Amino acid sequence: MRILLVNDDGIYARGLSALVRGLKDLGEIYVAAPDRERSATGHSITVHRPLRVRKVSLSDFGVAASWAVDGTPSDCVKLAVEDLLPNPPEIVLSGINQGPNLGTDVLYSGTVSAAVEGLISGFPAVAVSLASFTDRDFSKAGEFARTLVTILEKSDFPQNFLLNVNVPAGAEPKGVKITRLGNRRYINIFEKRVDPHGRTYYWMAGDLLEMEENQEGTDVGAVKSNYISITPLHLDLTDYPTIDNLNNNGFLENFKTIITGGSKT
Amino acid sequence: MRILLVNDDGIYARGLSALVRGLKDLGEIYVAAPDRERSATGHSITVHRPLRVRKVSLSDFGVAASWAVDGTPSDCVKLAVEDLLPNPPEIVLSGINQGPNLGTDVLYSGTVSAAVEGLISGFPAVAVSLASFTDRDFSKAGEFARTLVTILEKSDFPQNFLLNVNVPAGAEPKGVKITRLGNRRYINIFEKRVDPHGRTYYWMAGDLLEMEENQEGTDVGAVKSNYISITPLHLDLTDYPTIDNLNNNGFLENFKTIITGGSKT
Repeated sequence: MRILLVNDDGIYARGLSALVRGLKDLGEIYVAAPDRERSATGHSITVHRPLRVRKVSLSDFGVAASWAVDGTPSDCVKLAVEDLLPNPPEIVLSGINQGPNLGTDVLYSGTVSAAVEGLISGFPAVAVSLASFTDRDFSKAGEFARTLVTILEKSDFPQNFLLNVNVPAGAEPKGVKITRLGNRRYINIFEKRVDPHGRTYYWMAGDLLEMEENQEGTDVGAVKSNYISITPLHLDLTDYPTIDNLNNNGFLENFKTIITGGSKT
Repeated sequence: MRILLVNDDGIYARGLSALVRGLKDLGEIYVAAPDRERSATGHSITVHRPLRVRKVSLSDFGVAASWAVDGTPSDCVKLAVEDLLPNPPEIVLSGINQGPNLGTDVLYSGTVSAAVEGLISGFPAVAVSLASFTDRDFSKAGEFARTLVTILEKSDFPQNFLLNVNVPAGAEPKGVKITRLGNRRYINIFEKRVDPHGRTYYWMAGDLLEMEENQEGTDVGAVKSNYISITPLHLDLTDYPTIDNLNNNGFLENFKTIITGGSKT
């Protein structure tokens, strides 16, 4: 089995080595990861400057080949698949991220975006996050990744398959739940400060707003109740119900003046 | 009407001033845009360094207030809504982008991500792109944005509303179509070069692969046929059919050994 690993915390991050440890006996492990922390990069790619790649030896850790890329997590996946790997991977795993990737936050996540890039490139992909910013014991999440890949291999690696996994930190998880994305909202997002020269600057931070609403069935609810959460994701952002609404409610009629070359409002 | 404008080509981009020209008579126009080009930034946000903001005077152009931010398009929207604007906007418009934002490419687009950020912040949002990398006549797209905002205002700015608009360049469009996201794939994504010191570097580029499949009903097909494309987008990446599949096919049974504390494979 050929496995491509990527992350957004950088090639020397603890979460990535836990993933290597968890998976190394399953097959050939390849690593293509950013040369530094690139979290919160979302799905950005590097098009305005060239990318540099440095071969890194992680062979002592059971890695077949590994590369540090001076780009984003998505750059790493694209480059690995197109140029660096000797053969295409059978699965792409991203992580293990330090911190949860839940609900709407997946849109900002470099970890999840790397898995999305894996799926775009045609490979089944899994993003794995440890739901704590401080707990540095990634071993349980690494073992879970191993179990999950073993299960996926048995089912011949389903295509068009993207799983977002969040493993709670601390106590032994109560089990595994298949979930939908929940809601995460933040307040006091910016902290305004004044520098020694009297000029204002803004730190993005933000406190998580505990949602009143029912989180039953969501990734947020599962992790809160100490379950491992697996959320299947897809890439089609099309809002189909709204297409139907617009078509049924004569929305396009409003534009008739333009279409017929009539007066432009 | 209070309108917040943002883009990813930078505050002095031609596409943004066309948007200002199109909309300025409709109400108070506020602009918060990156201080330089930030295209292909996807939904990245700036959390590891503070943001600087510079007030820019565009009052000669009918803009109530405007700010250049040394961050991403999403940063601009967050900061404008939380701190810069005197009152919340009624709608957020992003663009006009130089180049199409169609199909899967919306995931990489700073223009679309800024509109997504508008929706996350609770405002109806529209991303507008001119479907050409070379045609610099944004006037038609600007006029269309004006018509669209006028129509949306008449319907009291529907909530949870995100429209991705692509306007074909060149000849007068044949009309407007409500579309779903189509497929865009690229080949030869990286160009490998050697620098004067003998070291390799990689340029991301890529040729658009003309898809054989039927593009009827998609944004790609609409623009190709010289129609203005409007695609409603949503933010829920959850793959609901796969949740049902996994639940109905006993996927979770596979993990029972972990849950019961049994032997880890």
